[in-house]
Amino acid sequence: MTGEGTSRRSFLMRSLALGGAAAFAGTGGSRAAEGGDPAITELKDWNSYLGEGVVARPYGTPSSFEAGVVRRDVPWLTADATSSVSFTPLHDLDGIITPNGLCFERHHAGIAEIPPDEHRLMINGLVDRPLVFTMDDLKRFPRENRVYFLECAANSGMEWRGAQLNGCQFTHGMIHCVMYTGTPLRYLLEEAGVKTAGKWLLAEGADASAMTRSIPMEKALDDCLVAWKMNGEALRPEQGYPVRLVVPGWEGNMWVKWLRRLEVGDQPWEHREETSKYTDLLASGKARKFTWGMEVKSVITNPSPQAPITHGKGRTVVTGLAWSGNGRIDRVDVTLDGGRNWHEARIDGPSLPMALHRFYYDFEWDGSQLLLQSRAVDDRGFVQPTKNELRAARGDNSIYHNNGIQTWLLTADGGLENVEVS
Amino acid sequence: MTGEGTSRRSFLMRSLALGGAAAFAGTGGSRAAEGGDPAITELKDWNSYLGEGVVARPYGTPSSFEAGVVRRDVPWLTADATSSVSFTPLHDLDGIITPNGLCFERHHAGIAEIPPDEHRLMINGLVDRPLVFTMDDLKRFPRENRVYFLECAANSGMEWRGAQLNGCQFTHGMIHCVMYTGTPLRYLLEEAGVKTAGKWLLAEGADASAMTRSIPMEKALDDCLVAWKMNGEALRPEQGYPVRLVVPGWEGNMWVKWLRRLEVGDQPWEHREETSKYTDLLASGKARKFTWGMEVKSVITNPSPQAPITHGKGRTVVTGLAWSGNGRIDRVDVTLDGGRNWHEARIDGPSLPMALHRFYYDFEWDGSQLLLQSRAVDDRGFVQPTKNELRAARGDNSIYHNNGIQTWLLTADGGLENVEVS
Repeated sequence: MTGEGTSRRSFLMRSLALGGAAAFAGTGGSRAAEGGDPAITELKDWNSYLGEGVVARPYGTPSSFEAGVVRRDVPWLTADATSSVSFTPLHDLDGIITPNGLCFERHHAGIAEIPPDEHRLMINGLVDRPLVFTMDDLKRFPRENRVYFLECAANSGMEWRGAQLNGCQFTHGMIHCVMYTGTPLRYLLEEAGVKTAGKWLLAEGADASAMTRSIPMEKALDDCLVAWKMNGEALRPEQGYPVRLVVPGWEGNMWVKWLRRLEVGDQPWEHREETSKYTDLLASGKARKFTWGMEVKSVITNPSPQAPITHGKGRTVVTGLAWSGNGRIDRVDVTLDGGRNWHEARIDGPSLPMALHRFYYDFEWDGSQLLLQSRAVDDRGFVQPTKNELRAARGDNSIYHNNGIQTWLLTADGGLENVEVS
Repeated sequence: MTGEGTSRRSFLMRSLALGGAAAFAGTGGSRAAEGGDPAITELKDWNSYLGEGVVARPYGTPSSFEAGVVRRDVPWLTADATSSVSFTPLHDLDGIITPNGLCFERHHAGIAEIPPDEHRLMINGLVDRPLVFTMDDLKRFPRENRVYFLECAANSGMEWRGAQLNGCQFTHGMIHCVMYTGTPLRYLLEEAGVKTAGKWLLAEGADASAMTRSIPMEKALDDCLVAWKMNGEALRPEQGYPVRLVVPGWEGNMWVKWLRRLEVGDQPWEHREETSKYTDLLASGKARKFTWGMEVKSVITNPSPQAPITHGKGRTVVTGLAWSGNGRIDRVDVTLDGGRNWHEARIDGPSLPMALHRFYYDFEWDGSQLLLQSRAVDDRGFVQPTKNELRAARGDNSIYHNNGIQTWLLTADGGLENVEVS
């Protein structure tokens, strides 16, 4: 097995083998007759058929050949689908943008379908001027566009007690990354005039769970957005249409969807979702609360258990995602032998703070069994820990904030499995 | 009328008027009873109803309230929908990413629906080793992720002879901007080994039009991608699934979809789509050919004829898009009086070469009639011209490459109209 700089000879040989009819060099419109490949003879000759026209799909949909690329749930995870989660198919994706139709969703009382013209956002509490905004009002404030990841605090939570789920969609799929458009929350708070005693903000959703979270005023005035668009178009219903809170780098539960109220107070509210839930129970029996930030993390998305290697030995692309609630990713390393030797991966595409980063590691696979891992380092110097390091620090009661290194066992047949290395 | 730094007082007064029930400050879960607004009493109280669960939509779709946000065609423009164009609803969008379902499409023989497992890409002609690649083969080359705009050469073409279409979706909607994932074309050409005489590349599509365009080798080896993903997921069928060419900054017709063949030659092929079409007929009767680059351009997307101002006087957000095939956008100016006075707009969000840029200009509208225009300058110093400057240079036979300044007349009722100023 050799590294990235390797000659392409082995790959080239395979291409030549496939290219049995490669001497065919007609410039006419007819399809190249690739006699050596039986699948080709079954092909519809598109040169003879007109396809569907432009009016057929005013809002486009994926190819029927991509029908398997969907969000999936884990039916045994929750009692009911209306308080549950679906997972982003990370193993099927590339780049750093998640298409809106595949963004994971987690909601606590189903998807509220709110008419935007009737929706209102209220600011009340310790403010000089309590205010109520229509959606049109919000759109008169200065806007910003930012690409951010949103990760559920419980992402990878089922892995605290060992490798359980066979696929990065399920171990790491409670994350997505889109471009948001909205207005900085501080403009709305300035409009209302926050009183000196106002140190906390309660964000409340309009859905049946009336999701409520306390947010320190410092964060609210820093980089939070009140957003109504994702990837250019309106928020999707399951993402809080018509308006949600964006709390960059912090756990997804705080990004309150169907946002209807912001109350300014002098202390946190200690509501259910920040006491009974979304706290970290330590071995001592004490629980850490207000552990908002999502720490530096990464995962290899391909190859992975849902995306085995089918091409046999030779040149292989390993790719994955890295992110940190602290800022940008500075470096990602990949190991093929469970952590003995690390190789620096190539980070490609825009590097934006608190956004997904895409990494690649290209190598020649010799067909042997490997233990694949990735390890990210963020621009504040934080290094992604092992799962055992996390367990040593926090015990094994935890559900949330598992940013440990993930291991995939690659076997000689190209299949992969979720395993732990000690 | 005053500029961006204006006090927010006029806006604030309106918010207070809306906020008649703003003293309501209950912290409980029940919906704020906003007695002053009759629409509110009709609202479904989502606190009492569970919404749709996570399993209902494995691939998500927009809210039913966004049903009007769609690509649209102009039925009289072409004889048949299978060789036609649908337009991106720019007036409904924000940010710089176009969601895949709303990316304009232009195809010459309908949408080929090609099974990816059976698709092949051949490289032939003046190469050392003719090659045929499967999709799996392509995915073993090093990948890159880049955000690029794709603009049809004919975008704004119907405006050469004066203001005709009432909406930026139709005047400027043959453009989209997504993140592509693919492999640099140069890697494939290196694998095949381009002979010294190989100075041109023919790219050919697998659809019924067998779209073919000649591309100079210098561009092919520079920044072109062979791409299979857009915004993270597989290319959409109408965008060339399973694989297309990406030719950054150059006219969309060259970004061959359903890419099946790349032939290396020693001269251009002079095919139909680069001689009879996609050339610029001058007043002299001579035509310019190989005018590939898309020049610096911008348009105000909101307010615009399809997106009137409904809030009356006061604080108003003007937003739009700017782009250049030469690189980044350095500056966008906005005028409210048809070009007498220009104000620098704020460019917000990532500034990436050959990608859309989003600009904003926030001002206080006094309710008077205005002539809105935007003018972009790129990082090579090119300034967007007026339509009359273009006509003086090229005559009035042209269809393609209209990057002239667009004017919207804003009337006192908030409506807008496509007009020309002399």
